[in-house]
Amino acid sequence: MSEPGAGRFPIPALESLPADMRERIAKVQEKAGFVPNVFVVLAHRPDEFRAFFAYHDALMLREGALTKAEKEMIVVATSAANHCTYCIVAHGAILRAYSKRPLIADQVAANYLKADLSAREKAILDFAMKVATESHRVDEADFAPLEAHGLSREDAWDVGAIAAFFALSNRMANLTAMRPNAEFYSMAR
Amino acid sequence: MSEPGAGRFPIPALESLPADMRERIAKVQEKAGFVPNVFVVLAHRPDEFRAFFAYHDALMLREGALTKAEKEMIVVATSAANHCTYCIVAHGAILRAYSKRPLIADQVAANYLKADLSAREKAILDFAMKVATESHRVDEADFAPLEAHGLSREDAWDVGAIAAFFALSNRMANLTAMRPNAEFYSMAR
Amino acid sequence: MSEPGAGRFPIPALESLPADMRERIAKVQEKAGFVPNVFVVLAHRPDEFRAFFAYHDALMLREGALTKAEKEMIVVATSAANHCTYCIVAHGAILRAYSKRPLIADQVAANYLKADLSAREKAILDFAMKVATESHRVDEADFAPLEAHGLSREDAWDVGAIAAFFALSNRMANLTAMRPNAEFYSMAR
Amino acid sequence: MSEPGAGRFPIPALESLPADMRERIAKVQEKAGFVPNVFVVLAHRPDEFRAFFAYHDALMLREGALTKAEKEMIVVATSAANHCTYCIVAHGAILRAYSKRPLIADQVAANYLKADLSAREKAILDFAMKVATESHRVDEADFAPLEAHGLSREDAWDVGAIAAFFALSNRMANLTAMRPNAEFYSMAR
Amino acid sequence: MSEPGAGRFPIPALESLPADMRERIAKVQEKAGFVPNVFVVLAHRPDEFRAFFAYHDALMLREGALTKAEKEMIVVATSAANHCTYCIVAHGAILRAYSKRPLIADQVAANYLKADLSAREKAILDFAMKVATESHRVDEADFAPLEAHGLSREDAWDVGAIAAFFALSNRMANLTAMRPNAEFYSMAR
Amino acid sequence: MSEPGAGRFPIPALESLPADMRERIAKVQEKAGFVPNVFVVLAHRPDEFRAFFAYHDALMLREGALTKAEKEMIVVATSAANHCTYCIVAHGAILRAYSKRPLIADQVAANYLKADLSAREKAILDFAMKVATESHRVDEADFAPLEAHGLSREDAWDVGAIAAFFALSNRMANLTAMRPNAEFYSMAR
Repeated sequence: MSEPGAGRFPIPALESLPADMRERIAKVQEKAGFVPNVFVVLAHRPDEFRAFFAYHDALMLREGALTKAEKEMIVVATSAANHCTYCIVAHGAILRAYSKRPLIADQVAANYLKADLSAREKAILDFAMKVATESHRVDEADFAPLEAHGLSREDAWDVGAIAAFFALSNRMANLTAMRPNAEFYSMAR
Repeated sequence: MSEPGAGRFPIPALESLPADMRERIAKVQEKAGFVPNVFVVLAHRPDEFRAFFAYHDALMLREGALTKAEKEMIVVATSAANHCTYCIVAHGAILRAYSKRPLIADQVAANYLKADLSAREKAILDFAMKVATESHRVDEADFAPLEAHGLSREDAWDVGAIAAFFALSNRMANLTAMRPNAEFYSMAR
Repeated sequence: MSEPGAGRFPIPALESLPADMRERIAKVQEKAGFVPNVFVVLAHRPDEFRAFFAYHDALMLREGALTKAEKEMIVVATSAANHCTYCIVAHGAILRAYSKRPLIADQVAANYLKADLSAREKAILDFAMKVATESHRVDEADFAPLEAHGLSREDAWDVGAIAAFFALSNRMANLTAMRPNAEFYSMAR
Repeated sequence: MSEPGAGRFPIPALESLPADMRERIAKVQEKAGFVPNVFVVLAHRPDEFRAFFAYHDALMLREGALTKAEKEMIVVATSAANHCTYCIVAHGAILRAYSKRPLIADQVAANYLKADLSAREKAILDFAMKVATESHRVDEADFAPLEAHGLSREDAWDVGAIAAFFALSNRMANLTAMRPNAEFYSMAR
Repeated sequence: MSEPGAGRFPIPALESLPADMRERIAKVQEKAGFVPNVFVVLAHRPDEFRAFFAYHDALMLREGALTKAEKEMIVVATSAANHCTYCIVAHGAILRAYSKRPLIADQVAANYLKADLSAREKAILDFAMKVATESHRVDEADFAPLEAHGLSREDAWDVGAIAAFFALSNRMANLTAMRPNAEFYSMAR
Repeated sequence: MSEPGAGRFPIPALESLPADMRERIAKVQEKAGFVPNVFVVLAHRPDEFRAFFAYHDALMLREGALTKAEKEMIVVATSAANHCTYCIVAHGAILRAYSKRPLIADQVAANYLKADLSAREKAILDFAMKVATESHRVDEADFAPLEAHGLSREDAWDVGAIAAFFALSNRMANLTAMRPNAEFYSMAR
């Protein structure tokens, strides 16, 4: 029960990885105190690994109007819609850490419509959920609630692109039977 | 953010309640260290309160083949399908406490199909989820996987009846905007 | 074809039941002229039987703004959404009897949106159906149409709680393969 | 409440209709004792009326292995899936009349999976429902259960074509807000 | 791979057909340069064939406010919702031919909400899709957007009836595994 | 109607882009004869652009058991499920080009279950569609049909990862209202 990917695909030995990947993983380990399983499982395919984390960083580290907590909130809400255990648990932990709101991740995962959200956060998650679950219906009217909270087109791109990226991430985690590290469950509660 | 029911319906003062209800609530408070909000919110209607908890106890305290942890697992899985924040969080805590498995509640809430379950637990949740989400399709074939794990018709009734009771409970919690007590989120982790 | 529960669970002999249950059943039989199968099938578990009917009575016999016919209409509409043959047929009969509208039950069961309903009845069923099928989305705006017809928060609780109780009842009837008594089909037409 | 089509489209005066239509309607009236509203509402468009009933007769009057009751059963089951009040009520009456089983129509409309059906009837309705609700998934394997009951490819065409024709009929009835004549509700009970 | 119906049902020899059917087919062949497979496959049942094309012509050849292109657009959009390969491809070709817009059929088939449509075309397809996918919810409010574009009740009947007729047609094509003629794919591009 | 993204987000001037992006785009233009709009629209965000195409190439150019045509088939089938006009049309063209089967793209987009596929192609698309639409249910049994066609775990990763990547891609195209270049519609027919 303790493997990162439940044995579905091979897990590489970290020391066998190319230097750039080892370096990236070492940094995360230093910061978090452990290596999140998403790094371990996706390392099986170095090119995809590099593209995945480059994309992740482009969105999640980008400066903009969305706070780090708002970004993680998008991840938790859309990952719950996709029933992705890894992302709900791991990003739930990060959401608690960034927001300093220890209850918010479990609320958003269960039903974001009843979570303790500001009106702005609610508008962000409504938009993100539409991109996650029925993006073909997104139309101009969907941008208005974001604009009512001072969020620009660029911010809307951020919201939608994070929902889109985790549509990928959730499917990879489900495909690989990726398992959250035990540390995530209790972090920042 | 701290009201038990988000102001949607009146919350009675506990001291104004009939003696039998106060007594029941006092016992729970003694055991848990706090009064779970389901008692506070449903106390608004004493007759329904009494019937609700009588039904709850008839199912959840009944001796039988299902363990207490298995019963709570049914509650968490079916409440997740109904997006009931109160039941996921509160019964998730109780599931952790009974099972001594601190990670299991979050796994079952996210996607019971990928949770660390025994084959028996998986069969129980499959049956419970069918009753919760498409009970009109339950047929004789659905009992076979339970029987393969030594679970009788009586046990199947327990599984199905718990799923059915929480179909009610989830809807009442959602109707009343019932909020989990903060204590539940971190209990038994 | 004539068993109350299609042989899925044991049916107790009525004379073997505890006195309070026999008394309750005798009263129903006296009034209806026969024993509705829900009493026969659920009698297999006396504690659950008592809680079930206590809950039923707390909601269905409670004095309030909803008429008896309106309450039965909620049962028929939500039971149709759950494809519960027993509740559609049995409560359809009771709806015809209370409302003196011999066509209304079949209309509500087929498609309540096209049934011959007053605007108030339509608002009640819209609210009930939301609780029955997506209670996690119920929000403050859902109460407004009820209020427009003079229905208070207490009345909304009644509507929602009846929908919630029959979410349980429908699942128990489907689980136990409960069959409507033949008498219900033609009653009050 | 008594108009055939709730006022949504004009209803022609029967005496203004072309002779062939008047004749057809007169025959039905003679047999049934009243003019079913489907004739009245669809008469608004004579060419469509003629094609509709020619198609109806080609399927419903065709000699083959399916009994008249089995054909009506297909209509009731698929019309229930489409929430078509007119077809559920009117063809429910005809089903009762042909089958001499006064309870069967209400059972099939509520949940055909739990109706008192023979294995052959169950296989017919499974096939019909697949054509009605997800015809794009029909494949060779779906014909096997029909064949197991001695039903040929020609019979399968009948089953599927009746489901297909009532996909049209249900939509026309819903579009025109067609109302069942009061006589249908109590016929043959 | 080249049979009109993938071998699921017998395909009649055209020369064996009754004169009226041969004549109809000859006319189509003269105009199109080939015999569309819908004629070949449905000819297996002459009475149904005649009713089908009588109905088709009553709707598609009827004079009214809808243009021929608008009618074909309804066919393509609703057939896409039903995943009917034959109708998407064959009527997509006809739509291109009538509209002189070589890209429109592929756009409407993929997602009509993002196709290059006028506001009137969008309103027509919204109404048609509601009839195709949830006709039981059609109500008076659905007619207003059509009226805003000058479309009368008669025009709304046309829109809805075309959607309804192709609900039948799509199911027959899926039931019979009807295959589009190769010519349709590239026609009018 | 001719903008690459319908005006929803700013479109950068190609000459203003960083050299590496201009070079990549120039190469595509040279090969295709035009610049596909996905390059134009996503160039608004250079870092995301680079990660997107790095990921794309890692999957689509990777050597393995899947042919180029099989990879494009996955894109078309899953993009159809997401109603992504851009990907259906653009990758449909590429699928036609690689497969030399001019009808296959329209068939797969309409209903892959009825397309002219080999058993191996059908197995690949079944797996891809499960990842695209309900990845949380993927389990060990889903790999068996791939293995029956000689496809390894690595190949299954390819299938699933392509479905996952286009879950992202489809959502970005829908978010940005990305429009297929006119050239794609008729290419390789």
